[in-house]
Amino acid sequence: MLYISSVAMTRPLLEPPAVNRRRLLDRLAALAEIGAIDGGGCARLALTDEDKAGRDLVVGWMHDLGLHVGIDGIGNVVGVWGDPAEPPVQCGSHIDTVRTGGRYDGNLGVLAGLEVIETLMEAGVRPRRPLAVAFFTDEEGARFAPDMLGSLVYAGGLTVEEAYDTVGIDGARLGDELERIGYQGSLPCPGRAPHAFVELHIEQGPVLEAESMRIGAVTGVQGISWQELTVIGQSNHAGTTPMHLRHDPGYVAAEIAAFVRRLVLDLGPPQVGTVGQIVLHPNLVNVVAARATLTIDLRNTDNAVLQEAERRLAERVDELAAAEGVTITSRALARFEPVTFDERVIALVERTARAMNLPTKRMPSGAGHDAQMMARLCPTAMIFTPSVKGISHNPAEHTDAVDLEAGANVLLRVMLALADDEEILR
Amino acid sequence: MLYISSVAMTRPLLEPPAVNRRRLLDRLAALAEIGAIDGGGCARLALTDEDKAGRDLVVGWMHDLGLHVGIDGIGNVVGVWGDPAEPPVQCGSHIDTVRTGGRYDGNLGVLAGLEVIETLMEAGVRPRRPLAVAFFTDEEGARFAPDMLGSLVYAGGLTVEEAYDTVGIDGARLGDELERIGYQGSLPCPGRAPHAFVELHIEQGPVLEAESMRIGAVTGVQGISWQELTVIGQSNHAGTTPMHLRHDPGYVAAEIAAFVRRLVLDLGPPQVGTVGQIVLHPNLVNVVAARATLTIDLRNTDNAVLQEAERRLAERVDELAAAEGVTITSRALARFEPVTFDERVIALVERTARAMNLPTKRMPSGAGHDAQMMARLCPTAMIFTPSVKGISHNPAEHTDAVDLEAGANVLLRVMLALADDEEILR
Repeated sequence: MLYISSVAMTRPLLEPPAVNRRRLLDRLAALAEIGAIDGGGCARLALTDEDKAGRDLVVGWMHDLGLHVGIDGIGNVVGVWGDPAEPPVQCGSHIDTVRTGGRYDGNLGVLAGLEVIETLMEAGVRPRRPLAVAFFTDEEGARFAPDMLGSLVYAGGLTVEEAYDTVGIDGARLGDELERIGYQGSLPCPGRAPHAFVELHIEQGPVLEAESMRIGAVTGVQGISWQELTVIGQSNHAGTTPMHLRHDPGYVAAEIAAFVRRLVLDLGPPQVGTVGQIVLHPNLVNVVAARATLTIDLRNTDNAVLQEAERRLAERVDELAAAEGVTITSRALARFEPVTFDERVIALVERTARAMNLPTKRMPSGAGHDAQMMARLCPTAMIFTPSVKGISHNPAEHTDAVDLEAGANVLLRVMLALADDEEILR
Repeated sequence: MLYISSVAMTRPLLEPPAVNRRRLLDRLAALAEIGAIDGGGCARLALTDEDKAGRDLVVGWMHDLGLHVGIDGIGNVVGVWGDPAEPPVQCGSHIDTVRTGGRYDGNLGVLAGLEVIETLMEAGVRPRRPLAVAFFTDEEGARFAPDMLGSLVYAGGLTVEEAYDTVGIDGARLGDELERIGYQGSLPCPGRAPHAFVELHIEQGPVLEAESMRIGAVTGVQGISWQELTVIGQSNHAGTTPMHLRHDPGYVAAEIAAFVRRLVLDLGPPQVGTVGQIVLHPNLVNVVAARATLTIDLRNTDNAVLQEAERRLAERVDELAAAEGVTITSRALARFEPVTFDERVIALVERTARAMNLPTKRMPSGAGHDAQMMARLCPTAMIFTPSVKGISHNPAEHTDAVDLEAGANVLLRVMLALADDEEILR
């Protein structure tokens, strides 16, 4: 059809069709009713009855559209429009939520994928390559660690057998729960590489809103370094102990937390760092603490700078321990290297959004996403839509309907281009 | 008798008698059996059955010695040796404990007083003025706030009626409990001013031990300023929120705690400062906190410097609130002005201990004591004995027997000098 870009033409001759905003919102609302919690949010922890009900709803919609629905050994679901033997242009995300989740995190990327396919079907547009929409098991990691478990298994980063033996926060075994809800499928793990992968997701941060941007062309995912420090000192009376005889873990914890801010500002963006957890014992007004624990969350898209941050922090921790006469032990909680998305797909997202007159910004993702796992298999990028006040993992999570629609339309054009224009990934 | 200093002679001609260490230790052990807890400590919260049993034991000993035992309206007990119509040289402390108290805190000052009197009686030494030993109600404040309640009422700082209406942590009314245990006496509140007051107490801090001193000549009690700061910011995702868009209460709390240390070191001894309590919400590794509360304990013997510390802290708090875009509110938890003891009694303690070849140090008390209330009524000072590792309010609280004995012997000589030598307080 004329408006589909051919191999020889990198620009469509006509505008592609636009998604049906009402239908997208209705599907988001229907899925949000399952596991609904006060304030408009959702609680659909992975592989619970609520997750099963959500999965059944979405799989039903896939069947309604006549997609080829495949389920793999870890419960990832892929609906394919077109020849399931050919590598598709795939989109998708997740439909599990945290315990106090919003209705857009993950769900948008899945339901916008359905909307893209239904829109193209209605318009009679048949892309050259198959299109597919997937949802991955246990992206949140809120019940079974680690997060992004399903896409990690899909990408070959974890064997399905290891994944089955994961025990959840409620003591349940993942494999048992997967079987219980009927989502242990027959497709092999790791999964087959798609032609390309694009994930539409809410930003979950304040950057797009703060800069009046409507689309983020996501360049990659930050590397993450989480550690917990335990400071052991000596508990003492706050009135009778002279300063020079103190070994105060509360003071040391505070100095470390203040140093993290200075370090991060010194390294400059995109380095971020957070001390979100501090616990003192015995935590009394008139007692020098005996012990302090604190966590440090450091993130950067550049692994070398992230390592530099870790090194400088460790140096400062050693200095403080020696100066105050306390012992400090560090426990690694998580360490992920940064992921860089495919420049060709990033550029496609960027120019597509700009062609639609949507203010667009290249940006890294501060949070982890299934796309970072899929990036191991095929050219991948993400599309961000604004999150009001940056709020996420909260019932108050919100993205304006016009932005949901805009994100879905960018997804449609990007998938269509990837499916029709072989030059893009040549 | 020859070895009693006369009005004309400021030095005794003979050595005064020495206390009976064994008898003192036996009384301490017998009292420690009442409300005994694991680890050798005591739990005798004020006006409980255990407190009554402890009071009965000590009052029994007072009667055994033939003292005139008087009980006032708030349950303070004074045993007088000599004419009860004349102002005595009084010592004393308290026998109530915190829930996980030691066996020396308070008890030593009371039982050493009995030992001083019994020793002098045995030696046939009759001081010119009456000697008295007191124990005051609810010094710890662990059941009924404020602490030092009994001596505060004795000194006229609180009416007995107000004190009766105090409700304890267990919901009991102080007046009811006092009546229940039979210790609502008939002597008036406020009480009569003694000729002088001396309190022997364990240091409850590490200074004497750290400096190899055996006696502290206590110059006064530090002023105390306690406040709780609440920092309200904005909770955000630790990965997706750029540093310049953060309003992080955890960071601000850490900067305040680190500032307290710098401020205190800058002001120099005897200024001390402690942040013993920090609580973050929601206190998660990957979430910028929404709220932080922290307490600040500042103490100094010089009220002007303490006020300066408060002023500089408030300035820094304001700066940090403005810089980070958070709101910070302060709630006063306690504010006591410093107390300065009587230089004549301090000097007497010092020269008495030195004359006994006991390494002696002038020092302020970091903790509150009944003596600071009695200082409103008469010339007052305190004698400190070392606390091993500075540990107190803990079953592991310990003072070596030789130090308990030395403290009691200093108390004996100081009381005797105050009773016999009118020049000292002239």
